[in-house]
Amino acid sequence: MTLIGRGMSRPDATDKVRGEARFVDDLAFPGMLYARVIRSPFPHARIRRLNLTAVAAHPRVHVTVTAEDVPGENVVHVIYDDQPALATGVVRYVGEPVALLAAEDRESAREAEALAQVDYEELPLVSDPLAALEPGAPVVAVPAAAEGKDESPNLFNRMRLLKGDVERAFALADAIVEGEYKTGYQEHAYLETQGAIAVPEEEGAMAIYGSLQCPFYVQGAVAKVLGLPLAKVRVVQTATGGAFGGKEDVPSQVASLAALLAWKARRPVKLVYDREEDILVTGKRHPSVVRYRSAARRDGTLTGVEVDFVYNAGAYQTLSSAVLWRGLLTAAGPYKVPNVRIVGRSVATNTVPNGAFRGFGSPQVIFAHESQMDLLAERLGIDRLEIRRRNALRVGDETACGQRLKESVGILETLDRARELSDWEARLRRVAAFNATHAHRRRGLGVSCVLYGVGLGAKSPFLDKAGAYLKLEADGSVTVAVGTVEMGQGLTAALSQIVCDALGISPDRVHFTAVDTSRVPDSGPTVASRGTIMSGLAVLDAARKLRARILDVARELGIPEAEVSIRLPKIASSFFMKNLDPAVEGWARAEPVDWDPATGLGNPYFVYAYATHVAEVEVDLTTGEISLEDYVAVHDSGRVLNQATASGQVEGGVAQAFGFAVTEEIVEKDGRLKVKGFTTYRIPTIRDVAQSIQIEFVEALYSPGPFGAKGLGEVPLMAGHAAISRAVAHAIGRQVSTYPLSPERVKQALAG
Amino acid sequence: MTLIGRGMSRPDATDKVRGEARFVDDLAFPGMLYARVIRSPFPHARIRRLNLTAVAAHPRVHVTVTAEDVPGENVVHVIYDDQPALATGVVRYVGEPVALLAAEDRESAREAEALAQVDYEELPLVSDPLAALEPGAPVVAVPAAAEGKDESPNLFNRMRLLKGDVERAFALADAIVEGEYKTGYQEHAYLETQGAIAVPEEEGAMAIYGSLQCPFYVQGAVAKVLGLPLAKVRVVQTATGGAFGGKEDVPSQVASLAALLAWKARRPVKLVYDREEDILVTGKRHPSVVRYRSAARRDGTLTGVEVDFVYNAGAYQTLSSAVLWRGLLTAAGPYKVPNVRIVGRSVATNTVPNGAFRGFGSPQVIFAHESQMDLLAERLGIDRLEIRRRNALRVGDETACGQRLKESVGILETLDRARELSDWEARLRRVAAFNATHAHRRRGLGVSCVLYGVGLGAKSPFLDKAGAYLKLEADGSVTVAVGTVEMGQGLTAALSQIVCDALGISPDRVHFTAVDTSRVPDSGPTVASRGTIMSGLAVLDAARKLRARILDVARELGIPEAEVSIRLPKIASSFFMKNLDPAVEGWARAEPVDWDPATGLGNPYFVYAYATHVAEVEVDLTTGEISLEDYVAVHDSGRVLNQATASGQVEGGVAQAFGFAVTEEIVEKDGRLKVKGFTTYRIPTIRDVAQSIQIEFVEALYSPGPFGAKGLGEVPLMAGHAAISRAVAHAIGRQVSTYPLSPERVKQALAG
Repeated sequence: MTLIGRGMSRPDATDKVRGEARFVDDLAFPGMLYARVIRSPFPHARIRRLNLTAVAAHPRVHVTVTAEDVPGENVVHVIYDDQPALATGVVRYVGEPVALLAAEDRESAREAEALAQVDYEELPLVSDPLAALEPGAPVVAVPAAAEGKDESPNLFNRMRLLKGDVERAFALADAIVEGEYKTGYQEHAYLETQGAIAVPEEEGAMAIYGSLQCPFYVQGAVAKVLGLPLAKVRVVQTATGGAFGGKEDVPSQVASLAALLAWKARRPVKLVYDREEDILVTGKRHPSVVRYRSAARRDGTLTGVEVDFVYNAGAYQTLSSAVLWRGLLTAAGPYKVPNVRIVGRSVATNTVPNGAFRGFGSPQVIFAHESQMDLLAERLGIDRLEIRRRNALRVGDETACGQRLKESVGILETLDRARELSDWEARLRRVAAFNATHAHRRRGLGVSCVLYGVGLGAKSPFLDKAGAYLKLEADGSVTVAVGTVEMGQGLTAALSQIVCDALGISPDRVHFTAVDTSRVPDSGPTVASRGTIMSGLAVLDAARKLRARILDVARELGIPEAEVSIRLPKIASSFFMKNLDPAVEGWARAEPVDWDPATGLGNPYFVYAYATHVAEVEVDLTTGEISLEDYVAVHDSGRVLNQATASGQVEGGVAQAFGFAVTEEIVEKDGRLKVKGFTTYRIPTIRDVAQSIQIEFVEALYSPGPFGAKGLGEVPLMAGHAAISRAVAHAIGRQVSTYPLSPERVKQALAG
Repeated sequence: MTLIGRGMSRPDATDKVRGEARFVDDLAFPGMLYARVIRSPFPHARIRRLNLTAVAAHPRVHVTVTAEDVPGENVVHVIYDDQPALATGVVRYVGEPVALLAAEDRESAREAEALAQVDYEELPLVSDPLAALEPGAPVVAVPAAAEGKDESPNLFNRMRLLKGDVERAFALADAIVEGEYKTGYQEHAYLETQGAIAVPEEEGAMAIYGSLQCPFYVQGAVAKVLGLPLAKVRVVQTATGGAFGGKEDVPSQVASLAALLAWKARRPVKLVYDREEDILVTGKRHPSVVRYRSAARRDGTLTGVEVDFVYNAGAYQTLSSAVLWRGLLTAAGPYKVPNVRIVGRSVATNTVPNGAFRGFGSPQVIFAHESQMDLLAERLGIDRLEIRRRNALRVGDETACGQRLKESVGILETLDRARELSDWEARLRRVAAFNATHAHRRRGLGVSCVLYGVGLGAKSPFLDKAGAYLKLEADGSVTVAVGTVEMGQGLTAALSQIVCDALGISPDRVHFTAVDTSRVPDSGPTVASRGTIMSGLAVLDAARKLRARILDVARELGIPEAEVSIRLPKIASSFFMKNLDPAVEGWARAEPVDWDPATGLGNPYFVYAYATHVAEVEVDLTTGEISLEDYVAVHDSGRVLNQATASGQVEGGVAQAFGFAVTEEIVEKDGRLKVKGFTTYRIPTIRDVAQSIQIEFVEALYSPGPFGAKGLGEVPLMAGHAAISRAVAHAIGRQVSTYPLSPERVKQALAG
């Protein structure tokens, strides 16, 4: 009986529920020191003098590190290597690391941090991305490899997607709608803050234990900053309390800093951020400004879109080019659009460098494209769900970037099923009735459709691969190692199901070793909803190879195939006694992709996931407060390997979407983030999202995926926020164009 | 330029010289407890009552464990599973574990240990193996699978090797000599005592960090005592400060005890023996009694040998059957002997269970067979080196057990080269001249020849395999994992040379990960001088597979084969960019062996190593003290991969041989070992063995071995002690038949 598709509980659940999982701050090593980072208090300044004499003189301080100490390259290696590990000469954002110290205990480290004497000369700053593009704006940095230097020294990247004849489409359109949409910061708010322990190992090697998504990124970064061969750097992922993209790029910085101290001290060094520090100095979702024009025929058929969007990258590039790229390829939505002009720009400012966040540059443009669809529907008098239906991509269609979709296009099924589950037409009537009978409360319905290119795509196709190691033990139990991580999303459950299904064994006989970069080949990052599909394929490859060997031995033993699973211990023992190799190496690589940066056209992703969400909200007209009343989420992620963890992803994504659209806000002023931990940064609680969420999966199988699976993790957030914000607009009868929809903004909209 | 054969320095050397290697007692884990073992003070007793109330009441004691707590099987899994992890009902040797405790600190653990209340009823004991075979002797145990129950309840194993017609050979012999030879305990005296830390890991798994030779033995033992699947037990070898066989079987016990505590406490537990405890309660070299008769023709040609030998196994079997087996197959020496009758018995006594020790049951019979050769030489008036030469095995000959030697038989070359290097005939004259001119000092020359069956042989052919994991990193550095351990013998250097040679890279680009059972398949134990040959073959297999992939990529890149090594970083980068699998799994299994337990005949080993040693000693006739004056060691271990580490093995082996033959003694009385650490147990110092040791290798290549290598580690000790003891006999003109040749025994021999 196959486990595939069933709701097997997560192997990591028991430890986490019991409090026995070991997070990085639960770990210690003999002789371990505690690190603090001496950071810039200014958004833009010249370092005139850096004096650590008093720090080093603290009796409990063991070591200090400045840029001069760096044995390798003084960079946080991500994509462009423009960010120094430790600032030299100039600091470019509040919180930028300037120097490091490690002390015998945490408290002393804090005390010593305050003893650093750094003289700064403040420089003019720019924190707004549009202002940064103006001529004469302060220059944040000289970008290492800017695509757009001609336009502005602060332009990190500029990307275009050009298809068809947009002018003509707009000239001939029956309807044109336009809008400007803005979104703010979103903080990842993972339960566990950033942390890493660097442990010098034998023979000049360095081990990193950390809370992270991308062990191989960290391996590369630490090797670079220490000047070591990759084989001398080993990264072990510890139990990770949430990530959401926040542990994609940032841990390379955290680990590099810890490693520098450990390298100099020749002792283990722990660097764990506290919550306020974590929120202030680590990258978030890119604030955005999206200008969007849509052209359609009378029947609602889109004929063209024109999009210009700008992302605030912060002081260094980190992943902004990749974030921008995904925004570019998502901006037209899951719709057929024959004529397209999209231009995206990521801009340097004197603010914290932003990085990966669930959705990765797509939620910003989704807010825009779904708002636009509603505007068109309204303009043309078409039902909002129906207009999406008419434009939705189907097998054989071409995406905005010209990719012909050969299979696995489930958007229409998600729309139709969402319509049924939400009882769309009847619910519209009920909402109208409610609104007619309530003076100070308004209800509204919103629908949102998204497409999501699974995996890393043609921006970095060399990352879409994965390795796995499987070993049949002499008692028939199985050891598995993979290179992608469990961070709460349920990956281990899904992979365990694949192994169990392929080998016909029960989950308690399978053990996943801690993810360690020295165990398996670079399997890319655990991002882009690629864990299940890529590691799933690698594990499946290994399991099938092992299965073939098992069947060979079974035949020799005269065991019929039907009894192989039940008699696996005997077969495994025979492997052992006959000196047969019980270990296999699995490998997977994604289907080829291609993309032309000149036009933005091509086949940028090997497959897409889809979703339709329908939200019902209620707005208190007196307070401006928004509550979520009912929710339907229908996803096409291909084959769902584990119903329980997949549903968990959707529930969590909807909560995070509510936060993005409604409650979560960080005000930035003069390069300073006005936020004080979770006191002022309001993440949704169970009371905000405890309403019924109906979740269903329609499974448009992707034939090269493991059992037809695609990817899921990021999609619920992407679809969720727009369903909610569109429901708010529907409730109050006003467009809303800036996230978050705080009570103040709602009341402002009502007044406008 | 190949590294093979060169004296590359050991990758682990720098850390060890600097004191930066991390031995098990250097490690700690958060929440770690310290264990003590409550042990039997009696050699044989019934446990009437076990009361740990006072132990548990100690304020710093966290947990106690008795046999009732054991979740799996209450055994120390080695071969027969006859030894309980914790005694129930009866204790059978002084030091047998009865219960366990773990406390918050080491001192409290010691205090609490003294609080255990155990009532014992003493039972009659037997500690002499010959006495134990007498009818009516106290019964030590009921052996689990005794081969010889008919003879005595205390007989653990009886093995025979029967070939030809021994009666006739002796009847027709021109010369017959006979002797009885006795050897005592030898303590391993590794620098680092036994130690393990058991660490409960996530998802119900247990990790063991320990000083050990056989990680997979420990994995199996811990899985059995905890009742876990093998996949849930991971054993990591920490830097190991010497082993010599002492960390073959004993760590399974140490780790099982630590694991029981950690399992119950759900916290890490460290169990490290102190020196006195280690010497008293861990197995040593089996004390022996060997009766030997040899028959020869007038020209010195051996026509028959008859051997009866008895090993004192101690209270449990551990590895005694395997130790006995190697004794059986070594007893005839490296000589052609047409008629053979050898009977070996291992006997249970109420003493510490003996186990593996460098040479593994062979030094005892080598003492005998080399003494016999000298007796024959003397009887027949043939030069001692010459008589060995005449009998030495050659290619095409048959060993005592009927194995036809097809290749790689270098004994004659070692003999001839040792004769040259020692200047044997001239030296004999010089010695005679010295003795003629000194009243109270006598010099003597001894020669010793040995053969050594490499690997585990037909007693456990399922252990002679090995796995390796190699990964080409994106920068061209290489990560390697193997399943056999570095314990000071230089394995990592040899394996590194193989990898570097196969891939054409320099050693600083290769990194060996810590040995961890979850990384590679069960690769058998690191014993029987099998590390280089078996892991060498596995690494070579992996490296050749990787090399083939590298060449494919090089061809695609247009890189000629001659430039592949120098341009490996570029090729590795291409692997990465093209998503090619850079990981390979290597596997090796030994050539088949066979052996018939009924006759003792067959092909028990796939190949043999050989050596001839020549020692010159001086005996002070007044004090009975022996000093080593000069030494020649010539070995055939096939191809020597690393001259430096191979020479180190020989030097160390000669020192340990000197200890075995001359200085090291433990007196046993009524089941109690009379020894107090190194105060009374005298291991040789640099002053005992600092004399010139000339070392050479003749390389009779073994074609299936890596570059023709065989094995070396145990052979120097095996050959050394007999060269030294025979030199003593030559010096004093008296036979010596009991080890160690303490001053008292020498003077006794002189008086006799």
